[in-house]
Amino acid sequence: MTSSPDRRSTGMPTVTMIGGGQLARMTHQSAIALGQCLRVLAGGADDPAAQVSANVVLGSHDDLEALRAAAEGSVAVTFDHEGVPLAHLQALEAEGVQVRPPSKALHFAQDKLAMRTKLAALGLPVPDFADLSGNVAAAREVLTAFGETHDWQVVIKAVRGGYDGRGVWLTDSREEALAVFDAQAGGDTVLMVEQKVAMARELSAMIARSPYGQGAAWPVVETVQRHGQCAVVLAPAPGLSDDAAQRAQQMSLKLADELGVVGAMAMELFETVDGELIVNELAMRPHNSGHWTMDGAVTSQFEQHLRAVLDYPLGDTSARSDVVVMANILGADTAPEMSMDERLHHLFARMPEAKVHLYGKSERPERKIGHVNIVGQPGESVEDVRERAERAAQWMSTARWTDGWDPHGE
Amino acid sequence: MTSSPDRRSTGMPTVTMIGGGQLARMTHQSAIALGQCLRVLAGGADDPAAQVSANVVLGSHDDLEALRAAAEGSVAVTFDHEGVPLAHLQALEAEGVQVRPPSKALHFAQDKLAMRTKLAALGLPVPDFADLSGNVAAAREVLTAFGETHDWQVVIKAVRGGYDGRGVWLTDSREEALAVFDAQAGGDTVLMVEQKVAMARELSAMIARSPYGQGAAWPVVETVQRHGQCAVVLAPAPGLSDDAAQRAQQMSLKLADELGVVGAMAMELFETVDGELIVNELAMRPHNSGHWTMDGAVTSQFEQHLRAVLDYPLGDTSARSDVVVMANILGADTAPEMSMDERLHHLFARMPEAKVHLYGKSERPERKIGHVNIVGQPGESVEDVRERAERAAQWMSTARWTDGWDPHGE
Repeated sequence: MTSSPDRRSTGMPTVTMIGGGQLARMTHQSAIALGQCLRVLAGGADDPAAQVSANVVLGSHDDLEALRAAAEGSVAVTFDHEGVPLAHLQALEAEGVQVRPPSKALHFAQDKLAMRTKLAALGLPVPDFADLSGNVAAAREVLTAFGETHDWQVVIKAVRGGYDGRGVWLTDSREEALAVFDAQAGGDTVLMVEQKVAMARELSAMIARSPYGQGAAWPVVETVQRHGQCAVVLAPAPGLSDDAAQRAQQMSLKLADELGVVGAMAMELFETVDGELIVNELAMRPHNSGHWTMDGAVTSQFEQHLRAVLDYPLGDTSARSDVVVMANILGADTAPEMSMDERLHHLFARMPEAKVHLYGKSERPERKIGHVNIVGQPGESVEDVRERAERAAQWMSTARWTDGWDPHGE
Repeated sequence: MTSSPDRRSTGMPTVTMIGGGQLARMTHQSAIALGQCLRVLAGGADDPAAQVSANVVLGSHDDLEALRAAAEGSVAVTFDHEGVPLAHLQALEAEGVQVRPPSKALHFAQDKLAMRTKLAALGLPVPDFADLSGNVAAAREVLTAFGETHDWQVVIKAVRGGYDGRGVWLTDSREEALAVFDAQAGGDTVLMVEQKVAMARELSAMIARSPYGQGAAWPVVETVQRHGQCAVVLAPAPGLSDDAAQRAQQMSLKLADELGVVGAMAMELFETVDGELIVNELAMRPHNSGHWTMDGAVTSQFEQHLRAVLDYPLGDTSARSDVVVMANILGADTAPEMSMDERLHHLFARMPEAKVHLYGKSERPERKIGHVNIVGQPGESVEDVRERAERAAQWMSTARWTDGWDPHGE
């Protein structure tokens, strides 16, 4: 564990982010504008944020000593992932460290069963669910009864640690569900089960909340999932009624208030075929569904997260355009021979308006290695903007244009 | 001279910028999005860019060995100021380093006499000027004759090294002009003299040019100068005819082409009371008159500078709004008691839409320590947007609201 010197000299605060991934990398960009340098606790010097910040502490988020070293002298500690053991955060809080969001709120982002239970208690719409922790035989009976009730259209989830489709098993039959259960139960993974929702699409209601209690909501977006992870975000969600958008924002703001969240928060929602909104997941940090704000909103989620963590007044969340589309650049099944540098060259030649954000990560299948934002021109349709964003992201992933364009042709 | 390790791992190129000031700091923000980390040659670890980049070489831009160390392994070397000795750049070029802009172009940004002579030879409109270098007695005679011709409305300039009003003396009489000459001549400062232009206002035509020869121009802006340095930028220049704007852009693009400029370039212009455009200064780098592009244009000058230096295709230079205003935050005569952190807090409370960029510099009178961009809403007048931008910048400088607002009042 090593620490680079703290080079600030102008009396501006230092914020520490636990985790050196792309969220920390992009938060650092916003920290620079605010006169700061983000301090990052990173697992390795090659982590996306460690590559670019002057203030890196190398160490593990599981190691309380590393957390203490990273927190030393900074005004607040925040996160680019949900993986820090709650007991460590409670220890830091007991030592006077400002942990934001605080452990009492983060608990609900780390533990899906606690989250579901809390949301249900607050009267927020959630899918039916049941606890599969504890005694294996008893839990198997709970699952069987739950499955029968829901025609075996159920989702088994790891209570902790799942993300981007990991730790989530969608099942369609008694056999499938019990097979998943039997494979997982009794091990380290604590399980729960949920009703599969007949959804029309997925939405995300992103907000931020400051310790002072100020809340601010961005426009509600539609998230398009592929292989269990976010692939495309349409901002704002096409065709969503003002009433539904407002309900989603209110739910997200209210929940953040109830839980005492500090920072950015994404509330992922299902819109059912009947137009109902049901809460799916929570993330108490900048989130993939907010990447569009970097180029498409007056205040980006990364700046807003810092403002919230620092208890600054929050920024204007207005969109800069009627349509903004974000598409993730994912590692291809086979990494293209053409270098990322050359791919970027060709992309810029075709789309001078594309805003590209690369994370400095090596390419692995389905790994999020960057994203592209396209901010629509006045009058452009969401279909047109989306087509360009997806074409750009696909090119950056695979070095193939979906429309057959040959960069070396005529 | 020390160097931090090169932590990139994804095969993206490294660009080196000579100079660790705010221009390098903001270029680093753009480098991050492009999957890179800007390497900076900085005089000290407290320099604005050295505070935030993971790749810092400490050393002087006057030291060829430091320049070599900073260039090592990077694909191109570029600049955040014009102060690097030309002979050093020529030495680097002879060793195969890609110096961008190349020394043959940068020469004209470093030497105002060479620039004036070249521009006149290219038929571009420049003020009348004369060479005051060489023999002091002969130069004094040249100045006397030049002064008589122009009714002693003349500007004496240092041929090299002046910026932000330094090295520029505006004089109104024979006595004043000769006093400046006598005080400066015969020392290290090489002088020239120019006709004072009866100007209505100052403009800036910013462009970028790639080695491939692609050029791209941002909207022409009006720059408001105070105490010899840029204070406010209005984008686009209010009331400038399309014809005049196009002429300015064409002049800037043409000149960049003639000189072989690579990167961003600002051509500062006088608009005379007769509506003529006359070239004043050149800067071959990101420039204060382009800071509005960070929030107000599809492609910022910092991203564009990197794209040009890397020979990537250039980005879309369209404005995001009909009116964008930038106001510099300057150190006050007496630094306010209220900390910068607290000032920022109050600013955000009053203006959630203000985009603030702080440079991590200590406060000294008239020193540029940050800037504020306000992107106008549809239908907003330039006066309204400017008033907010100037009010915000003034507050950040002095901790006083120009409109008398009391943040602790009712």
